[in-house]
Amino acid sequence: MKVLLLASGRSKRMQPVRDKNFLDFLGKTLLERQIESLKSNGFEDIIVVGGAHNLEEIKSYGFETVEQENLDDGMKGAISSSAKMLTEDVLIVSSNDVFDESVYALMSNAIKECSEDGVVLAKKVKEYFPGGYLELDSEGFMKSIVEKPEKGTEPSDLVNLVMHYFKDAGKFVEYLEAAKSENDDLYEVAMQNMINDGYKFIALPYEGYWQAIKFPWHIHKVFGFLFEKAEKHVSEKAQISENAVINGDVIIEDGVKVFDGAVINGPAYIGKGAVIATNALVRESHVGKNCVVGYSTEVARSYLGDDVWTHSNYIGDSIIGNNVSFGAGTVTGNLRLDEKTISMSVKGEKMDTGENKLGIVTGDHVRAGVNTSFMPGVKIGSNSFVGAGLVICEDIPENSFVRGCTTLKISKNKVNVEKIKRNL
Amino acid sequence: MKVLLLASGRSKRMQPVRDKNFLDFLGKTLLERQIESLKSNGFEDIIVVGGAHNLEEIKSYGFETVEQENLDDGMKGAISSSAKMLTEDVLIVSSNDVFDESVYALMSNAIKECSEDGVVLAKKVKEYFPGGYLELDSEGFMKSIVEKPEKGTEPSDLVNLVMHYFKDAGKFVEYLEAAKSENDDLYEVAMQNMINDGYKFIALPYEGYWQAIKFPWHIHKVFGFLFEKAEKHVSEKAQISENAVINGDVIIEDGVKVFDGAVINGPAYIGKGAVIATNALVRESHVGKNCVVGYSTEVARSYLGDDVWTHSNYIGDSIIGNNVSFGAGTVTGNLRLDEKTISMSVKGEKMDTGENKLGIVTGDHVRAGVNTSFMPGVKIGSNSFVGAGLVICEDIPENSFVRGCTTLKISKNKVNVEKIKRNL
Amino acid sequence: MKVLLLASGRSKRMQPVRDKNFLDFLGKTLLERQIESLKSNGFEDIIVVGGAHNLEEIKSYGFETVEQENLDDGMKGAISSSAKMLTEDVLIVSSNDVFDESVYALMSNAIKECSEDGVVLAKKVKEYFPGGYLELDSEGFMKSIVEKPEKGTEPSDLVNLVMHYFKDAGKFVEYLEAAKSENDDLYEVAMQNMINDGYKFIALPYEGYWQAIKFPWHIHKVFGFLFEKAEKHVSEKAQISENAVINGDVIIEDGVKVFDGAVINGPAYIGKGAVIATNALVRESHVGKNCVVGYSTEVARSYLGDDVWTHSNYIGDSIIGNNVSFGAGTVTGNLRLDEKTISMSVKGEKMDTGENKLGIVTGDHVRAGVNTSFMPGVKIGSNSFVGAGLVICEDIPENSFVRGCTTLKISKNKVNVEKIKRNL
Repeated sequence: MKVLLLASGRSKRMQPVRDKNFLDFLGKTLLERQIESLKSNGFEDIIVVGGAHNLEEIKSYGFETVEQENLDDGMKGAISSSAKMLTEDVLIVSSNDVFDESVYALMSNAIKECSEDGVVLAKKVKEYFPGGYLELDSEGFMKSIVEKPEKGTEPSDLVNLVMHYFKDAGKFVEYLEAAKSENDDLYEVAMQNMINDGYKFIALPYEGYWQAIKFPWHIHKVFGFLFEKAEKHVSEKAQISENAVINGDVIIEDGVKVFDGAVINGPAYIGKGAVIATNALVRESHVGKNCVVGYSTEVARSYLGDDVWTHSNYIGDSIIGNNVSFGAGTVTGNLRLDEKTISMSVKGEKMDTGENKLGIVTGDHVRAGVNTSFMPGVKIGSNSFVGAGLVICEDIPENSFVRGCTTLKISKNKVNVEKIKRNL
Repeated sequence: MKVLLLASGRSKRMQPVRDKNFLDFLGKTLLERQIESLKSNGFEDIIVVGGAHNLEEIKSYGFETVEQENLDDGMKGAISSSAKMLTEDVLIVSSNDVFDESVYALMSNAIKECSEDGVVLAKKVKEYFPGGYLELDSEGFMKSIVEKPEKGTEPSDLVNLVMHYFKDAGKFVEYLEAAKSENDDLYEVAMQNMINDGYKFIALPYEGYWQAIKFPWHIHKVFGFLFEKAEKHVSEKAQISENAVINGDVIIEDGVKVFDGAVINGPAYIGKGAVIATNALVRESHVGKNCVVGYSTEVARSYLGDDVWTHSNYIGDSIIGNNVSFGAGTVTGNLRLDEKTISMSVKGEKMDTGENKLGIVTGDHVRAGVNTSFMPGVKIGSNSFVGAGLVICEDIPENSFVRGCTTLKISKNKVNVEKIKRNL
Repeated sequence: MKVLLLASGRSKRMQPVRDKNFLDFLGKTLLERQIESLKSNGFEDIIVVGGAHNLEEIKSYGFETVEQENLDDGMKGAISSSAKMLTEDVLIVSSNDVFDESVYALMSNAIKECSEDGVVLAKKVKEYFPGGYLELDSEGFMKSIVEKPEKGTEPSDLVNLVMHYFKDAGKFVEYLEAAKSENDDLYEVAMQNMINDGYKFIALPYEGYWQAIKFPWHIHKVFGFLFEKAEKHVSEKAQISENAVINGDVIIEDGVKVFDGAVINGPAYIGKGAVIATNALVRESHVGKNCVVGYSTEVARSYLGDDVWTHSNYIGDSIIGNNVSFGAGTVTGNLRLDEKTISMSVKGEKMDTGENKLGIVTGDHVRAGVNTSFMPGVKIGSNSFVGAGLVICEDIPENSFVRGCTTLKISKNKVNVEKIKRNL
């Protein structure tokens, strides 16, 4: 059996966060994690479908790859590009989802016992979720997928997740090539046509953790889950001042330095070589490799990539890329004055994130000056400079240099300052 | 004997601070404190004179009330509205003054021993004060009140305070109704007429603490006095990190949390359920119920009402109402560059407060964004939003939404930031 | 023998730092240090050449002085003004250089053993330095001075420093008065003429520490050297909280107070009566007398004169004069966004300092408001006020009052803030 791991998406909804496949959590990328989990559950023959934008980086991990040529063709395109490898059965898995490790054993067993034509992973939901619901036939097999039904009209409590097993991969490819649709749903149309022609797919209920990683504000949720599952440890190669305080569960890697008066309140991950400086506070956050959380900085409920440098900042509910610096006194607003939910632009459209507390999202290689104020929900594109003393209440495109335009009024000082008697 | 507690003033000089009667110090309002003190000194039959603006709230404490109809008529109006209750003797007390508890016993004894027509409390002052001075006759009885005499021309060292006992309340009411004046001094004219007609009032010298509570900058002085008199305690139901430091006299109430690295330098009051967060500093301040003094915030010589949330702020020499939030990096300036005394607008007029250090005064329900700078002596009206990154050097009316108008200049960044080699 | 200490320069390249002779390091001015070093090495008869701008202050130390009349005439002018005192031999020393103490014994011995006409101190350099190099003749005597040769064409590895011994001072004066040049090099021309006429000057190689103190960014280097040489001590008359942390080498003088949670990372000098307040951080810095390093302030790699007050500031890689205050939240930027070397104006011209990290330089008697941002390399002249919330990216002349011009837009707040349910 082949596993086809679909990793060719361009993470447009995540921008300016880089390709989600390479998002590093606790020292390991999502892609590595997914492949490790598959392998440790017996799925050995894995092909990662990438695109021109990420194929080289996928290869750099040593994974077997295939290139999806037409990236606008979505899942259909991914499978078409892999068609000639799909001679037997196949498990198609999206890299868009984070699951509990147990899902792979569940699927593995279902495949072993499967005497029908395939298995579809079905997340059992307790609350309405705007996804594709499975309609089942009288025998309990999949009858159709109902996309985003009105709340209250869901055909079941099972949401379709892209972990699909096809016993006859070649047949599925045939249906896929024949499918016709004006929308971006050829994959689903192909499945529907198979069902209509009598193929039987098992809906495999799954009650464990699931988080789509689609929008930037999903990142912190994924961190929380992965951290909880991970083994906690404080490296013996970390230098932690006896005047620092660590509360709750933490992971502290090799070479970390925690200075006097610093406080880390778990859950918190501190990556290799990072510095948590004097009197800084890190809480409920992911701090990547070689970051410097500077003096008098708070990092709260945030994700910091690698090489992020802060200094007398407040970074709250934010997603910060790799190689980013903030000047002293610069802060991320993370709460509206009216405390309503915060909107963020996604693919050019404003979208309600449903979050009351949300800071900013930055790409990689960003520099911000001192005393600048970022408004909640703002995105800062990669390779951008943001000047000092600004209020940033709009998204900043990548490769930008942002300045303000304060004009100083300089007049003569009529006070003899030397004569002032100061009162402490 | 009746006690008439005059609480119908509209605290205009205190705005945007709410009605001073309900100002809460150490968990109890001024009104409650005054009534408790009166009762514990044998004054049982107390009527509180309120107005349309506060009568319901006074009643909510369970106090007996009467409504002053014409609030523009000052003390005369208060007594007129209560006239039919004043059948015997009466002690008229203003709610504008804070005294040492001993004043009530002093007055009680004077009343018991009084064989004349009344007693007037007379604050013995050591320095000039711009109030009404008592002129005494040769027998030592009150002869007249001299309002704000030139310094050096004071007729005595006794200042008239409104804690006045009249043996024949009905007679005083008669004189009051007959009094004529073009100014707001019918009460004083009535007393003068009685004296002129041969009534004798004892001037009761009082050497204890007295503080009028008239302007916002009086609040911190009152806090200092009440705190000093109060029994100090740290609740067993407070959670205080072993890494926090408490110096000097403090009162810490139930449910308070003091986090690692926080420092409290007394005199300081921390109300029920308040949080003093990591590395915060509170000194010489009153922190009301359920406040959050956030990470890296200093609160110095300030009064915070209930539910005030701060975060990486400096709040110095300020009076903050209830339900107020400050975004990270927002600070109150509390010292002029030339270190002169600070002016504040009072009833629309600029007034020299005589204070070198003075921050801001806010009403209730205020929200300020991040990195905003409030200039010394500024007032922020209730229910107002103040945006981020602003310099506020003017008073903000209630129900305002204040924004700035920075224009960003966005050009192309010609630097390849990825190539920059950072030096720690 | 006379020693002529040339201290009449006007420190123009150092502005707005005051006269470098009076720069105080570890409680002693450079002038005092130099004279002490000379005296303790047997140079007793010292005359300090000053100018109208500093003669009185030099005298106030009790030093013997002579006034240089024409300050535009440089070293030639200094010696002309002292001519009639120069009857025997003379050691001419500039106050522009900081040496290791050992240099004086070295010179003293060379003078004792000198059977030629003079001795010139020659710094042995390992790397190219843009100064005057000594060309030696075949016997090893000085042949000429080559000013700023192209790198690679230096005539030796010896750089001329102004510590020059002339056995016949009167003869040198003669040559000096006769010298002719269109440039500011009469002194060097006179020496050259003497050499040409057969006088022999020994080049005395010196391998110890040497630092010209010419530009503001030299000050921190000098501090580092003087600190290293100084005896470390913590005064018993300092009050250091048991919750403060001191790491590395420090000097802490009488009357210093270090509050709870403060951290001092050596090398650090804390002058008499200074306060390092709660949770402040001082590292690799010189803090002068009676400074207040306020709550939540970091002072890093900086020189603070006396009476500098900070408060929730970041002062990095900066030189701050005497009697200076910074409002809360005001910071010095010390790193360009592109991390290139920082320029500073020197005598009206932009000059590359060669430093990647450099903050600001202020004169004396400066006041800055809250939340102001100073850009790297900016100079603030003495007796200036800088308002709140500004971005200062240009030099500010002395006696200036700098304001911004934000306009507030105030509209009606349509939100009933009281109804907002806050989430911690």
